[in-house]
Amino acid sequence: MNVVALAGGVGGAKLVDGLGRVLSPQELTVIVNTGDDFQLFGLHLSPDLDTVCYTLAERANPETGWGRKDESWHCLAELEKLQAPTWFKLGDRDLAVHLERTRRLEQGQSLSAITRDFCANWGIGPEVIPMSDDPVATRVFTDQGVLAFQEYFVREGCQPEVKGFEFAGSGEALPAPGVMESLGEADLVIICPSNPWVSIDPILSVGTIREGLRDLPVVAVTPLIAGQALKGPAAKMYREMGITPSARAVAEHYRDLLTGFVLDSRDQDLEDQIGSLTPRKPGVLVTDTWMKNIEDRVRLARETLTFGEGLT
Amino acid sequence: MNVVALAGGVGGAKLVDGLGRVLSPQELTVIVNTGDDFQLFGLHLSPDLDTVCYTLAERANPETGWGRKDESWHCLAELEKLQAPTWFKLGDRDLAVHLERTRRLEQGQSLSAITRDFCANWGIGPEVIPMSDDPVATRVFTDQGVLAFQEYFVREGCQPEVKGFEFAGSGEALPAPGVMESLGEADLVIICPSNPWVSIDPILSVGTIREGLRDLPVVAVTPLIAGQALKGPAAKMYREMGITPSARAVAEHYRDLLTGFVLDSRDQDLEDQIGSLTPRKPGVLVTDTWMKNIEDRVRLARETLTFGEGLT
Repeated sequence: MNVVALAGGVGGAKLVDGLGRVLSPQELTVIVNTGDDFQLFGLHLSPDLDTVCYTLAERANPETGWGRKDESWHCLAELEKLQAPTWFKLGDRDLAVHLERTRRLEQGQSLSAITRDFCANWGIGPEVIPMSDDPVATRVFTDQGVLAFQEYFVREGCQPEVKGFEFAGSGEALPAPGVMESLGEADLVIICPSNPWVSIDPILSVGTIREGLRDLPVVAVTPLIAGQALKGPAAKMYREMGITPSARAVAEHYRDLLTGFVLDSRDQDLEDQIGSLTPRKPGVLVTDTWMKNIEDRVRLARETLTFGEGLT
Repeated sequence: MNVVALAGGVGGAKLVDGLGRVLSPQELTVIVNTGDDFQLFGLHLSPDLDTVCYTLAERANPETGWGRKDESWHCLAELEKLQAPTWFKLGDRDLAVHLERTRRLEQGQSLSAITRDFCANWGIGPEVIPMSDDPVATRVFTDQGVLAFQEYFVREGCQPEVKGFEFAGSGEALPAPGVMESLGEADLVIICPSNPWVSIDPILSVGTIREGLRDLPVVAVTPLIAGQALKGPAAKMYREMGITPSARAVAEHYRDLLTGFVLDSRDQDLEDQIGSLTPRKPGVLVTDTWMKNIEDRVRLARETLTFGEGLT
């Protein structure tokens, strides 16, 4: 069974990890958001890509979800003493990845090729592909002006009120090598429980990725439980965009794509509403979607796969 | 007494430190070689500038002379695991300086302004000025081709045979703000015991710096003792350039500039030869020039200053 997962930050990485533990490496391809990539101190940072890879490599910090486990912060402490900007927390080990990625990009290597090498180095089985090798920058329109995603997310702590989003460059960006091929061979696409606005929409904005999903079974796993995000600003964004945050709002967000939706048990009352969404009238799986530990990731992955298989 | 010191790497930094301990901050300006600056991992590195500043800030590693004391190497270890180039040893704390310098350069700030801020932050009293805000790249012509200085020095461990040197960009580079002004007010110029070929010559190659020295008392402190460098490839370079390495060779190297030369006691037999060098027939001070500890730095600085004052 060939599965393609679309993923962004921490929540998405958890389900990807579960899928990686259930499927064989050949069965899983992960397409990762790079709209949150940015430049800092002259380095190219790919935070979502790192989160997914660190998680799959069992190198992620289990407390934060982002960054490395067993990390040290000597460089950051020194940056603070130099009164340098330290809003983005660069760990000493994490820095090595940014340095080497930047070096290779400057040599003309592609982000997808670099990512493939890093994954091999880290012993990651499934294929992890950035959505594009071309720059796509998620910009957040807010009451405090237009912010680059990480400025909004980390530097401003998601405080500004959101008015809209733009994925600058997505018009010209091509899907990275392997993206359309993996969709062409996919038996199932899983939209991970990532922020729809800023983790999944950037992926769907690139080239023909959205079109590539139209004839496939596509299952989204809700990132909202009882109207709240476990982490991050998804619910706040829905509210500020004038939409009541709920799993139903998420399902509507993806409505032209969905053949299945995984709803949290706490939201069981939304099952019928979601199941009747046009045009594809998604099947609905009601289960516990809160991944508190590795076992939860594996269970949710298994349930989602079984559910998805039943849809095809 | 206004003193300008020209300095490159570790030996130069030691005498600069001694001068900084003897003179008041207002009396000392240090002009530092930036011909060894280079790009690594997208970062701008200024190794000589860092060595001088770390030494003056009492942050230098006393064992190596370069890098930081109390340093950790977590990023470097991770770079090694990623099979990234690790020939240049980037410490975690040291990295913060490269990151912040690069960030500010990309913002359009000048290297001299950034250096001034870092020095203030580190509590460095004397003014430390990079020789130029413009790029000047020391290139080493060798039997293995043309190498950037740090490639020759660190990556190749000074093994290639030297055929010559080039300071690319020096024709267009302007002295950094403060360089010519400090020379205009100088009562004494001290050429520190740095490598003449690759630490001092790059400084002298920039704009009118060499001309600015012609009417001033200029004292060079020998970097060679008994034909050997305490550190680095100076003696090897003299041999490969067809010149017997000795304090006399160093004095001849600077002969059009020198009014004084500080010779090591072990080379006392060269005193008369050096004293008769044309055109300026330098006075010669014979003393112990080997700086093994802070006390030696202070003593040599004091002796050099007294000697230089006597020449004016």
